[in-house]
Amino acid sequence: MPSYKAPLADIRFILEEVLDYPNQIASLAAYKDFDLETAMAILTETAKFCANEMYPLNSPADAEGLKYDAQAKTVTTPKGFKELYKKSCEQGITSLSQPVEYGGQGAPHLLNGIISEIQLSCNLAFAMCSGLSHGAMDALLQHATDDLRKAYLPKLVSGEWSGTMCLTEPQCGTDLGLITTKAIPHEDHYHLEGTKIWITFGEHDLAANIIHLVLARLPDAPAGIKGISLFLVPKFTLDGQRNPIFCGGLEHKMGIHASPTCVMNLEKAKGWLVGQPNKGMQAMFTMMNAARLGVGMQGLGIAEISYQTALGFARERRQSRSLDKAKQDESATADPILVHPDVRRMLLNVKSTNEPMRALAYWTGLQYDLAHVHPDPAARAEASDLVALFTPICKSYFTERGFENASECLQVLGGSGYTRDWAIEQHVRDVRIALIYEGTNHIQALDLVGRKLPIDNGRLYKLFAARMGKFLHKNGDNAEMKEFLEPTAKTLGLLNELTMGLAEKGMADPEEAAAVASNYLNLFALTVLSWMWCLEVKACLGKDTPFHRTKLKTARYFFSNVLPETRTLAALIKAGKAAMMDPEAGEF
Amino acid sequence: MPSYKAPLADIRFILEEVLDYPNQIASLAAYKDFDLETAMAILTETAKFCANEMYPLNSPADAEGLKYDAQAKTVTTPKGFKELYKKSCEQGITSLSQPVEYGGQGAPHLLNGIISEIQLSCNLAFAMCSGLSHGAMDALLQHATDDLRKAYLPKLVSGEWSGTMCLTEPQCGTDLGLITTKAIPHEDHYHLEGTKIWITFGEHDLAANIIHLVLARLPDAPAGIKGISLFLVPKFTLDGQRNPIFCGGLEHKMGIHASPTCVMNLEKAKGWLVGQPNKGMQAMFTMMNAARLGVGMQGLGIAEISYQTALGFARERRQSRSLDKAKQDESATADPILVHPDVRRMLLNVKSTNEPMRALAYWTGLQYDLAHVHPDPAARAEASDLVALFTPICKSYFTERGFENASECLQVLGGSGYTRDWAIEQHVRDVRIALIYEGTNHIQALDLVGRKLPIDNGRLYKLFAARMGKFLHKNGDNAEMKEFLEPTAKTLGLLNELTMGLAEKGMADPEEAAAVASNYLNLFALTVLSWMWCLEVKACLGKDTPFHRTKLKTARYFFSNVLPETRTLAALIKAGKAAMMDPEAGEF
Repeated sequence: MPSYKAPLADIRFILEEVLDYPNQIASLAAYKDFDLETAMAILTETAKFCANEMYPLNSPADAEGLKYDAQAKTVTTPKGFKELYKKSCEQGITSLSQPVEYGGQGAPHLLNGIISEIQLSCNLAFAMCSGLSHGAMDALLQHATDDLRKAYLPKLVSGEWSGTMCLTEPQCGTDLGLITTKAIPHEDHYHLEGTKIWITFGEHDLAANIIHLVLARLPDAPAGIKGISLFLVPKFTLDGQRNPIFCGGLEHKMGIHASPTCVMNLEKAKGWLVGQPNKGMQAMFTMMNAARLGVGMQGLGIAEISYQTALGFARERRQSRSLDKAKQDESATADPILVHPDVRRMLLNVKSTNEPMRALAYWTGLQYDLAHVHPDPAARAEASDLVALFTPICKSYFTERGFENASECLQVLGGSGYTRDWAIEQHVRDVRIALIYEGTNHIQALDLVGRKLPIDNGRLYKLFAARMGKFLHKNGDNAEMKEFLEPTAKTLGLLNELTMGLAEKGMADPEEAAAVASNYLNLFALTVLSWMWCLEVKACLGKDTPFHRTKLKTARYFFSNVLPETRTLAALIKAGKAAMMDPEAGEF
Repeated sequence: MPSYKAPLADIRFILEEVLDYPNQIASLAAYKDFDLETAMAILTETAKFCANEMYPLNSPADAEGLKYDAQAKTVTTPKGFKELYKKSCEQGITSLSQPVEYGGQGAPHLLNGIISEIQLSCNLAFAMCSGLSHGAMDALLQHATDDLRKAYLPKLVSGEWSGTMCLTEPQCGTDLGLITTKAIPHEDHYHLEGTKIWITFGEHDLAANIIHLVLARLPDAPAGIKGISLFLVPKFTLDGQRNPIFCGGLEHKMGIHASPTCVMNLEKAKGWLVGQPNKGMQAMFTMMNAARLGVGMQGLGIAEISYQTALGFARERRQSRSLDKAKQDESATADPILVHPDVRRMLLNVKSTNEPMRALAYWTGLQYDLAHVHPDPAARAEASDLVALFTPICKSYFTERGFENASECLQVLGGSGYTRDWAIEQHVRDVRIALIYEGTNHIQALDLVGRKLPIDNGRLYKLFAARMGKFLHKNGDNAEMKEFLEPTAKTLGLLNELTMGLAEKGMADPEEAAAVASNYLNLFALTVLSWMWCLEVKACLGKDTPFHRTKLKTARYFFSNVLPETRTLAALIKAGKAAMMDPEAGEF
């Protein structure tokens, strides 16, 4: 039966040998208490907790699901979740990277990101509760008044209270300009009226209070997204009164059965403005950007647990004979299916993409910390640019690949994978939503192409291409790296060319950019993953351990069997919009 | 809310204009009563039944699931299934293509295949019951004694009884050589003992009797697959006695919740030999080959209903503005999402592959009929070769693409697609098993590469390549077809080249062939689909109707946005086994 073991060796390798964490962290005074060994100790302990306490509840909670009481408008989470939540707060999962002044531990956000991956491997539905709290805390930290921060942050940090993001309404998801929830000024606060849907952990029994961050319109606000403001709407106000924001029902979903997805009705609920009037979208993006990296991590976390499950199965299950006589196990009537080329192909498709996705996730996590606390403003600005550029890539590519990888792992198990017994079908169902929420993957692609690339005439892209190009150039003489550097450089060249073409075409006709944005994002992601592999390969040279040797073999698989996907993507990007815009609406 | 409408216009187009059904059928005396109009009348009526009676039960049955009574060892199907089964038998769904002498209607198998697609769109879980019966009937028709045929076929044909295939055991699925179920001679029959798993509709309440076709070993049978025989094991013997073949439990699965997947325990159950002793695999393949085409049809059927659901949503749902001002609907605050390039991209990915898959499915269905009843033995032999060659391609490619297409359609609906309300998440869950059962998709690829290609030094492949090449050559001067013929000819050239390379490499090292088999099958499929598109395009030339104009636009999308997948596949096939066989078992 499946179990989970955190990839601590890979985590340490990336931190120490790829990201140069010891030196990077030494340069950040804010994080001086979190050297590599301290970080690894925290990660190791949390990983143990997640594997032993969180993972075993994953499959039973999926089967049990949630109970909604229509009378009381309450939601009961599956057996064991309350105790688990309490323990996870004690473990410091909600407080780790929050500021010390509000009771947090002040650790780098990077560590929080790594713990996210581990948690999401173990119990995605459960982990979303604290994931949403982090988004709410970020928004309050950056946009709320000092009074609101002092009143609400300490208990969010401790986990006594949880947070939500209330954006979507029945008539609008992608297009938030259509929001109609109203906020009417009343005394020192506002009365909010409207209906929000798809509110994750909008109602539940894990925390004593739920702090909703709600997008709504002030009276006389301009139409569209320029007239949206952000409000803090607690389930219980500070005086202990029940605020009329009620759960009107739960969605019945393909997966994340243990994560309540609520309809929330605001019936003159008391709210307090967060940030400036009509600047709610800006504050919302603070939550969204962190949340988008978090959702990307869901793709990686699920791909990792799926890989572990499939590999465990492939080592045990015996079926048919190796085609290579030398590999046949004469003591048995069949060989472990791990001998078969196609089983290896499927596993390596997953392993050779999971590992550079992890490197990229942590690389981006480090940039996030640099952007916030690096002493040099120029370094902060550059790191911030790179986070902005890579956020849509991580969200979209990791979830798309994560879903494919989970499905590929299911295939390794054959019929067993389709039954509940191995939980892998749950992983496929659970991760499917990650391609949709926090902005569908195409919205990420539009963010990349329509928002991030045009900034300052390509400043973000140029920074990235220069950074990556510099690495390739610097290592160009390294004969041992040639087999990896050459295709990587070629891919970067292709991306450069297509980016220029896209900028020109997209300027003349926005539909051209939108038509190829999704494929462009995937090609961009593969380019960055090949860079990550080069960073990993470089860290392996001259280190003749089993771990490092395996890394090189896995990298080779990526370059021969995954990177060629760029060939198709390039052709599709070059094809442009013609064939997709040509049919009339009636011709579909 | 979603509904289903059978693609009757496309069906008629393929039959009449692509397959030349009227002339083809006229040459087959056996089918003289089934001219085009008769065929369309049957299809139209059955489609109406499926849309009105079968489809509405699909979603509720998924939610309700099955009930297993451990005491009585019985299975209760969801509400409405019994009545629906009775009506579907009255509609002639079980009898349509069965021989008149056993009470069938003697229609071409092609029509049965088309009805399969329609049924599978409407209710995959339900349709599997009669699907399994067809496999059992085929095996009995071809391999059973006259006595057994007379005793069992009429009630299978009428649907009063249903059939199963009992192959898998706990220790063996792919590797049937490991079967241990025993058959001990006893009087004029056998006593069967053993446990079978994953038996679809192994126990249920729809039919009065269940006729199991069971693989087992005779005493002193040779080891491996050469010692396996096929037996008929009825739930009730002809004298009305309950035969001890009992359902020991149901699997809990990702999807097809209304299709019972049973553990079957044979406790000295009475069985009768079907075919020759120790030749069970051969008889089994009779069932399997038809079943494999049927499973391929599941991929297409689900892709079709998913497309219809997504398209319906995309026409209604309004979100954001068209990037092209001219297309903006000034009467509303947002435009239907069908205006957005990426929504069109997703829908066209599906439409432009569904349609040639349908053409290929029916083309293969026609070959199946030609193979059985064409007056010329040479024509029968050729048709039989083509069916053998295309069966693994249809099974594997249609299910893989069907799953991708269903998931792509889910994405069109965004968050709504993830909820049960639109049933599309069910389609994704239901179709996922089709990549696994009746031989996993990689087993199909091995069948293609290791069994079908080597026959007679490439006889099947050469026949296919000559047939397709002849078409391309014959139409080479057609200027209007140039844009389609050129890439198709190029793809066939590529496939020819890779096939030769594969034959050489695979001869020297079977692992080389196995390593690339899955990608090779997909490249083969894309080649055949491009041929199918050329056939459709040819049928459209000079016909300036909306239907035919749409076909051309859809074909163009396929060539610009789908066929380039061959570029990546070719690179992977050329990469061979090196990177996947290099890692040691401990390095995964």
